[in-house]
Amino acid sequence: MDLEQAFLKTLESSGVVWGLGDDGVRLDTHQCVYMLDLFSEGVHFKRGWLNCAQIGYKAVCVNVSDAIAMAACPKYALLGLQLPRGCNLAEIRQLVAGIAKACQEFKIKIVGGDTTLGKALSLSVTLIAKSPKPLERTKIRPKDLLVHTGKLGQSYKDLRALLRGGRVSPKSKFVCPKLQNLLKFILSVRPFVRAGLDISDGLLAECNRLSRLNKLACKLDKPYNKAYLSGEEYELLLSAPPRHKLALLRRAKQQRVQLNFVGVVCRGLSHYRPKIWHA
Amino acid sequence: MDLEQAFLKTLESSGVVWGLGDDGVRLDTHQCVYMLDLFSEGVHFKRGWLNCAQIGYKAVCVNVSDAIAMAACPKYALLGLQLPRGCNLAEIRQLVAGIAKACQEFKIKIVGGDTTLGKALSLSVTLIAKSPKPLERTKIRPKDLLVHTGKLGQSYKDLRALLRGGRVSPKSKFVCPKLQNLLKFILSVRPFVRAGLDISDGLLAECNRLSRLNKLACKLDKPYNKAYLSGEEYELLLSAPPRHKLALLRRAKQQRVQLNFVGVVCRGLSHYRPKIWHA
Repeated sequence: MDLEQAFLKTLESSGVVWGLGDDGVRLDTHQCVYMLDLFSEGVHFKRGWLNCAQIGYKAVCVNVSDAIAMAACPKYALLGLQLPRGCNLAEIRQLVAGIAKACQEFKIKIVGGDTTLGKALSLSVTLIAKSPKPLERTKIRPKDLLVHTGKLGQSYKDLRALLRGGRVSPKSKFVCPKLQNLLKFILSVRPFVRAGLDISDGLLAECNRLSRLNKLACKLDKPYNKAYLSGEEYELLLSAPPRHKLALLRRAKQQRVQLNFVGVVCRGLSHYRPKIWHA
Repeated sequence: MDLEQAFLKTLESSGVVWGLGDDGVRLDTHQCVYMLDLFSEGVHFKRGWLNCAQIGYKAVCVNVSDAIAMAACPKYALLGLQLPRGCNLAEIRQLVAGIAKACQEFKIKIVGGDTTLGKALSLSVTLIAKSPKPLERTKIRPKDLLVHTGKLGQSYKDLRALLRGGRVSPKSKFVCPKLQNLLKFILSVRPFVRAGLDISDGLLAECNRLSRLNKLACKLDKPYNKAYLSGEEYELLLSAPPRHKLALLRRAKQQRVQLNFVGVVCRGLSHYRPKIWHA
């Protein structure tokens, strides 16, 4: 068991946690979901990979992606920032420009936070997002169709290139996630889907996760696809009743979102062998 | 201008911030306030000063103190945790025990978060607290009484002892803030006070802050008090109409909170010379 798992397991047994296990949490009757994500130098990125503007932009997007996975519209953010002691004003301006760009695109207001100086650049973003009916990970049913958005695989290639010391296009979704259309799409199809989550650890890992949570199998038509190992894809895996296929396709076309129907829910359990990305 | 100020100034001019400047923020009609605080090794504490249980406890308390300053009752927390790569299971258990102790005392549920591994131990806590009428920093009026809770000065002494390599009692409020009575007190006196904030940077600094925000002077009876330089006091500075003095005293006695009436609001501006704690 790794340290993070050890922490989570201990925390869960302490009796003070509630509602963990989804991309975010819904509380009471607020019609809001809440999520917190860390984005840290040396863990989620290296300084050579992204410039400060890209870091600021992506730190916000990582959370927006979680909101999308819950069919929630981002509204407010709280920002915990650790600035490296040696950073300069130009870098700070770039960082703010990146954060502000993401906030403007998704109409997010930053309403609070805290800053400190430290060794490495690290952002902790808490997002408050509105949803009249948050999309959760449970409630899939046998015969549901499994469908994912977008084209999978590129994030893996880009990450590998970066790890080898290579470069990737600034348009790569690993550098600059593209989430505007996906947000509009998920809000428009919410009535037609039963459950969903974002593809953080690869499609196979997400199928296992859905399977375990719902005690049903997520059967893929062609599981031996290298692209299904690619994590950090900023795409969605959704489960929807077959009768809504046309409604989904129509709205996907409107928002220029690509849909791929890749499998079906049935009785049993899935045990695909995914690659674990985070050490 | 230091780096943190540079960041804040740039962020504020970006147009994506809203409602900053208080201990927390109130959104829409939720009757909730939101606050985020960082608690990081090498910035807010050194590992020799606090054990892991004390770190976990204090990380939650730092946020509870902000909730108290807004007369809000803590309800939910999201936890961003960076664990140092070399930490062991016993330390993780201690850390969780400390977090859980604080959560149990204040009836907080942890509803989300994120963990990573990094160089140093760092916690980012977002707190969601309920308040039908949050106490803000503005709205003080001439002739209001200025009153602070508790005895000031010990935190400064303890911090100095630690910085000199000395030790402090595990009961020191620098190690283990005592906030239970303060929370009950502030909830009970909310109708009688006009504005308030917690004494993070010393009473003189907080008087200047209140003065600047309200464009009124916070006149202290005896400003040349060393204890008024002591920050991180986990006590409140409140402004209240003179007619409510008795009501405040009565409720303070009930909750065993010490009250010190130390000054009065009048026209003008205050320019006390406080010590700046955070470099």
